[in-house]
Amino acid sequence: MKIYGDIQSGNCYKIKLLASILGIDHVWVEVDILAKETQGEAFLKKNPNGKIPLLELDDGRCVSESNAILNYLAAGTELSSTDVYKKAKILQWQFFEQYSHEPYIAVARFISKYLGLPEDRREEYKSKQEGGHKALKVMEDQLSTTAYLAGDTLSIADISLYGYTHVANEGGFDLSKYPAIQQWINRIQAHPNYMGMV
Amino acid sequence: MKIYGDIQSGNCYKIKLLASILGIDHVWVEVDILAKETQGEAFLKKNPNGKIPLLELDDGRCVSESNAILNYLAAGTELSSTDVYKKAKILQWQFFEQYSHEPYIAVARFISKYLGLPEDRREEYKSKQEGGHKALKVMEDQLSTTAYLAGDTLSIADISLYGYTHVANEGGFDLSKYPAIQQWINRIQAHPNYMGMV
Repeated sequence: MKIYGDIQSGNCYKIKLLASILGIDHVWVEVDILAKETQGEAFLKKNPNGKIPLLELDDGRCVSESNAILNYLAAGTELSSTDVYKKAKILQWQFFEQYSHEPYIAVARFISKYLGLPEDRREEYKSKQEGGHKALKVMEDQLSTTAYLAGDTLSIADISLYGYTHVANEGGFDLSKYPAIQQWINRIQAHPNYMGMV
Repeated sequence: MKIYGDIQSGNCYKIKLLASILGIDHVWVEVDILAKETQGEAFLKKNPNGKIPLLELDDGRCVSESNAILNYLAAGTELSSTDVYKKAKILQWQFFEQYSHEPYIAVARFISKYLGLPEDRREEYKSKQEGGHKALKVMEDQLSTTAYLAGDTLSIADISLYGYTHVANEGGFDLSKYPAIQQWINRIQAHPNYMGMV
């Protein structure tokens, strides 16, 4: 299988991290979004929404959306679940990530790290702080109760949220106020198959 | 089970529509978001993220995030799938909905229908049009190939996208340019257990 991504993007790194933890053999195809490589005809055929990450199976079938790819790759492993309620809680965190976390924390980081915090995006950058801290608070509350987001063991819910949370400082978010999140980050980084973003 | 929601919200209506199609017995608890009923202590205990819809099981356990609830309720039915690839495609459309569709089409509708298009949100309303049409184009392309989003039969991917798409006109989106989407809407509305938004 091929995975198209940008290793500096949290959405793409999630897939790389899961593949490392599960020992999934794959070819990584590095894509430059700023050079608009996802907007070319060949790529749009694979993903009409023009986004990475993208999973391409050996038979040519494709799956897009980082969290859908995580569910595909983790199916049948201990990082997913066959229990219907547990599965729903994992998905709950993943949808939370895409709607209530990523649009604040990842976008603030993008404006700062990728674009260099230009003057005309400074207001937008500032406007992302409140929503980002709200999301971190929701995570902190859960992680004060359970070791991982969907219970006592690592799941793809953690992989999803870890992607942008562990680099939230690059978007201006000070994690020192969130001790449970910091311990959770340490727990994930202690996994024997852990690999970092770079 | 109880479902907390606002029937005028597409995210909540999705759950109501699925419950109707599958004949799921439930108590509907109508919630007024503009009166901040999701921000009270009792509600935040059920969903720390303070959002509807929310599913509360008879034993008190809760699931939030509309698409996680759909996956929970549809598990084991013909609207979900046990095939790992098909399941990933359903999730792909649901994550697409939350990230690339809802933030444009639902937010434009909210500004127009709920808030009455006030002067200070007019620019934001206009800024939602391009992204909304991009999302509709991605749907139109798929629905020109298959009868439903994840293949030839109705799935919860369709329920997710139908929620805000069928009222996209209330956010200023003219669906007459999207014939495949219109036929898909007609197909869903022809389901014997279909129920409308109001």
